[in-house]
Amino acid sequence: MTTAKAARDTASEASPARAPLRERLLDAAAELLEQEGVGVSTDALCRAAGVSKRSMYQLFQSKGEIIAASLERRAPQLTALLIPPPGDPVTPRERMLYVFRRLEEAAHDPGYRGCPYLSTLVELKDPEHPANVVALRQKNEMTAFFQAEAERGGAADPAFLARQLALVYDGAAARAGAGVDHLDGLAFNTASALMEAAGVRK
Amino acid sequence: MTTAKAARDTASEASPARAPLRERLLDAAAELLEQEGVGVSTDALCRAAGVSKRSMYQLFQSKGEIIAASLERRAPQLTALLIPPPGDPVTPRERMLYVFRRLEEAAHDPGYRGCPYLSTLVELKDPEHPANVVALRQKNEMTAFFQAEAERGGAADPAFLARQLALVYDGAAARAGAGVDHLDGLAFNTASALMEAAGVRK
Repeated sequence: MTTAKAARDTASEASPARAPLRERLLDAAAELLEQEGVGVSTDALCRAAGVSKRSMYQLFQSKGEIIAASLERRAPQLTALLIPPPGDPVTPRERMLYVFRRLEEAAHDPGYRGCPYLSTLVELKDPEHPANVVALRQKNEMTAFFQAEAERGGAADPAFLARQLALVYDGAAARAGAGVDHLDGLAFNTASALMEAAGVRK
Repeated sequence: MTTAKAARDTASEASPARAPLRERLLDAAAELLEQEGVGVSTDALCRAAGVSKRSMYQLFQSKGEIIAASLERRAPQLTALLIPPPGDPVTPRERMLYVFRRLEEAAHDPGYRGCPYLSTLVELKDPEHPANVVALRQKNEMTAFFQAEAERGGAADPAFLARQLALVYDGAAARAGAGVDHLDGLAFNTASALMEAAGVRK
């Protein structure tokens, strides 16, 4: 299952009357963006969603807006997939490792194409693109999670460990998504070694 | 200086008579691909290179071929930038750290856009795209360098350490290229911690 598919069942709608079209378009966008990248045509998006181009332009001004809205719509579900709920697991170390366990599971799927936020950032380049603003916020949210747990876990330099773990996450996601590596414990064990080096309590 | 600019002065030409046009096109492609990604139009490529579309299609059958040839042309210079020459530095540990020193220096430039091989892999998705074949080969070459040095340096599991270091390289390059992190020692220190954890001799 792609992470896009996994993100299907959440997402709230601003305008209930328009929701079905908007949803269909954003779900199709999530799938196509993950498999083909930001170069996907608006024609292909409309075709996959079964939505006319006229309807699309009534909902969104540009493809860039669709990409941003699609990332925004997936964010709660992706967060729920990767970040543990409060108190389960309990220890900071296990809570941080949870993220890497989930990443390793996701990367095991042949349809895995990496972190959609990082891919969007790499593909769109411009940091001020609305989709990259969403992507950057989500990236920073994961780093903030790591930092809070690293502090609780007694890391020597929690902010630095958080950046290291975010780097491991992105490197692993990108390499697995591109088929350069198959992980099989690589991300998990690397994160674990860095936590140990930083003095996080077991 | 972008890594594309740095790659300018090398590259051999198959056909001297055709070389200037071909070179101009591939140099323009390297720059534009780095700054704008694989979505760059053939019109923009031709304009930047001062080459007619007719000339372009006499040299290359498709944009995909240009991307592949552009990566191929840059490879020797990028390797020279990142991989230390034989014997300098001497110790395996310092030779591996050399790569991260160079990465940190490159990432310091505001024009830095990450590793062109990883970006191409992320952007083009299809692992059989000719440009991705080149990119994957170059990625594997860096991992092989790390593995050889890790073996010489006495790492407990040289192949595993090599994959860890390649992951750190890609994560750091992607995050710095996308403006998510500014590195400032992050890649260097993370690589160093992993080498220490793996038992590489100082």
